[in-house]
Amino acid sequence: MKHLTKTNENIYGDEAPIAAVATTPGNSALTLIRCSGNGCIESVSSVFKSSKIKTLCEEKGNTVIHGWIVNKEKEKIDEVLISVFRSPKSYTGEDSLDICCHGGYVVAEAVMTVLKTAGLRNALPGEFTFRAFMNGKIDLTRSESVMELVCAKTNKGRQHALRRLSGSLEKEISNIKELLVQVLASTEIFLDYSEDEISADGDEIAGKLPNKEIALSAMDSLKKLSASWQFERLYQEGVVIVIAGRPNAGKSSLFNALLKEDRSIVTEVPGTTRDWIEAQISANGIPTRLIDTAGLRDSNDAVEKIGVERTHKILEEADIILYLIDGTQGATEEDIKFIEHYDSSRNYKKTILILKSKSDLDNFIKVSENEKNMILYHTIISFSAKTSDGLEEIFSQIDIEVKAQAGDEEFSISLGTARQKKLVDSALHSLEEVLSLSYKEEPLDIIAPFIREAVNSLGEITGEVSTADILEEMFSKFCVGK
Amino acid sequence: MKHLTKTNENIYGDEAPIAAVATTPGNSALTLIRCSGNGCIESVSSVFKSSKIKTLCEEKGNTVIHGWIVNKEKEKIDEVLISVFRSPKSYTGEDSLDICCHGGYVVAEAVMTVLKTAGLRNALPGEFTFRAFMNGKIDLTRSESVMELVCAKTNKGRQHALRRLSGSLEKEISNIKELLVQVLASTEIFLDYSEDEISADGDEIAGKLPNKEIALSAMDSLKKLSASWQFERLYQEGVVIVIAGRPNAGKSSLFNALLKEDRSIVTEVPGTTRDWIEAQISANGIPTRLIDTAGLRDSNDAVEKIGVERTHKILEEADIILYLIDGTQGATEEDIKFIEHYDSSRNYKKTILILKSKSDLDNFIKVSENEKNMILYHTIISFSAKTSDGLEEIFSQIDIEVKAQAGDEEFSISLGTARQKKLVDSALHSLEEVLSLSYKEEPLDIIAPFIREAVNSLGEITGEVSTADILEEMFSKFCVGK
Repeated sequence: MKHLTKTNENIYGDEAPIAAVATTPGNSALTLIRCSGNGCIESVSSVFKSSKIKTLCEEKGNTVIHGWIVNKEKEKIDEVLISVFRSPKSYTGEDSLDICCHGGYVVAEAVMTVLKTAGLRNALPGEFTFRAFMNGKIDLTRSESVMELVCAKTNKGRQHALRRLSGSLEKEISNIKELLVQVLASTEIFLDYSEDEISADGDEIAGKLPNKEIALSAMDSLKKLSASWQFERLYQEGVVIVIAGRPNAGKSSLFNALLKEDRSIVTEVPGTTRDWIEAQISANGIPTRLIDTAGLRDSNDAVEKIGVERTHKILEEADIILYLIDGTQGATEEDIKFIEHYDSSRNYKKTILILKSKSDLDNFIKVSENEKNMILYHTIISFSAKTSDGLEEIFSQIDIEVKAQAGDEEFSISLGTARQKKLVDSALHSLEEVLSLSYKEEPLDIIAPFIREAVNSLGEITGEVSTADILEEMFSKFCVGK
Repeated sequence: MKHLTKTNENIYGDEAPIAAVATTPGNSALTLIRCSGNGCIESVSSVFKSSKIKTLCEEKGNTVIHGWIVNKEKEKIDEVLISVFRSPKSYTGEDSLDICCHGGYVVAEAVMTVLKTAGLRNALPGEFTFRAFMNGKIDLTRSESVMELVCAKTNKGRQHALRRLSGSLEKEISNIKELLVQVLASTEIFLDYSEDEISADGDEIAGKLPNKEIALSAMDSLKKLSASWQFERLYQEGVVIVIAGRPNAGKSSLFNALLKEDRSIVTEVPGTTRDWIEAQISANGIPTRLIDTAGLRDSNDAVEKIGVERTHKILEEADIILYLIDGTQGATEEDIKFIEHYDSSRNYKKTILILKSKSDLDNFIKVSENEKNMILYHTIISFSAKTSDGLEEIFSQIDIEVKAQAGDEEFSISLGTARQKKLVDSALHSLEEVLSLSYKEEPLDIIAPFIREAVNSLGEITGEVSTADILEEMFSKFCVGK
């Protein structure tokens, strides 16, 4: 087992027996409770009764036993199947058990209560994976990929996470680090020689980096990894599309038409959607949150005011805004003000699509020259949620925008977390410093520490270099039971 | 395996390999997929790859194997643990597998897709338990208790379900049936003798039931079982408490005070709660749904109208109504009208507690003689959600009402489903007929069929007597994966 430099009281660091419900609580058929740690098999055996065996303690690894969890008063708590795993052949590398009990909120709680009386404590978030890391079963990139896999929102997201779980990123980082270690070694050898005052021959004068082309190749690989994050982040976090517009512009109808199901009440009274309503859709394989908001208008109604405030907040998070103009009224001053505001403050990420609703109605006002002049830089799409006219065009515009944000490139190896991205960028930054110093022909003893910095950043990605603080922060983001 | 008399196309009846996600979908650490049926181990083996073994087909029962689910193109889909079970030592009695894969919506779906390509079909609701029943692993009362266990809302509910899962009800029903079979046998023997024209001696003349005291004892036991259902049903379905009153009477504040947490927006504007909000609490160990409703008033606002209509609907489901009078206004005509309406239409189940809110305010109007005269049959509890004054009294009144509905008696053996209750009552009814006919000294050949009816009803409870229709209706209420 690895040893942590404890910077503060670190309860992740012990090997005590722990337990956690590893499946989602609910009225499903089954619930899985995971146990791991020193003595956990003995502890659970004291609250387990089986007609087949006397004790779990003599069972060998990878066997399943049927029986009952009982409390200290020998009262039956649930009928279960227990899988026994023996160190080091388990997820954590420790002695472990998977208890498969009946589903439901109450059963899981009752079994957990008994396990606590048997001496197991509640696992912290990510503690099982933390132990797997500490016992050398997986590196940090693979630890992180476990959570990425669980949280994957599309099949592509799952594939990428699985690639990392299989070790693709760990291998790539190791390869790049290997290159930099080579550069570092040759630089240090050169420095040693310099100290011995053996003068350099040919190229390797002070300031000229030995194995420079290797450093450049490492930099190329790092740049590719760094670029993969924009794409990967989009697959993980998804795109946020917010429907906005004045009250009664037809927002909820559009929301429902896009979802092709009735999710929010649609009535003829302005101000129906008091809070925002959200649904998950998929645009071009990328997970997309579609959000219907309260109507934007100045209101004296306290509750409606809360709704409008929330709308403005959610608009800030939007990647794409679908702004609705009431087609029976045409663009009003308020509409123009809103669009201009977002046009002027927009960054590369935010896009507004201008839509004109209710094209099926007799009193629908066609897009006028006047409107076109007021709303520059945008095409206006007319649609009817009722007849579905124009919906196809809206969908394909959304697809185009989402694709633009994802970028075209497909990466065979990609980063999985913001933490990895930060460390890759920090390694890149150090390398840029190395090359810039080398270009300025600074002495190698000034350059060498930057190479070392880059190597360390890469070591941090896989967890070769780590502190208790870093690890605790990382694993505490996991869900309990992982 | 039992054989069904197929009354219509019955797809529950085959032994094909089936699969289902047996845990609740969600971003948890793990998901469990259950497979069972003829050839399921061979099928899954074709999409499983392990560094340890070549094929699952040679693995013996109750072993766990680590590996990867792969698709037909050998692309890795997820890293899994597979538990192998060999017939008859499995839940269903068939060859079975539990696949423990990573959590999350996408992973489970991807694995299920691969399993389908391998020849497994989606399991129907309750199909695993149905097969366990058909293969003689459990009777119907124990089958049903599996769902009761999963849906248990309190620890007591879990204990009762587990008692039935252990076979307590099955045994009790068998015992009672045994008694009735004894009565039936002696009756039939007597009929045989009569046919042989051997005249009866002493007591056993025509119309006098042989072993009458045994029939009476069976009836006693059946009555106890029947009575246990009111209590059991309450533990399963819980009590519904609805907070009602005119707008701004302080309903949401009371709701929040009872929950001791902020769940609904509390503002000073009438008509805030547009729809009902619900939370689960426990009153005296009995699961209780606490529901906050929209204010009751005539409204021209279309949305609010929908809310008020829904309130009236949910009030019909209420077991206990907490009716709030605004303490700063006193009982209005509307309040009195509401209370009188529910008083006049109330049945034994529905109770109204009258509460007067805002007792902390200066303009709070103390309960007047006039109010007492208008609201007969009720004590009025004054309270303040702000200072918590009076909340204790409200809680203890709720406890008293809930207890009154549950009844005092504790049953050591209890019924678990409405189906069982119906069949017990039907057996009881037949027995009453038997005794009434015997009292009228009707001939035994008229009486005997009713004894047989009672025996059959009891046989239906455990499943000895069953038809495909009955079974299908029963198991289709189960959740998928059970």
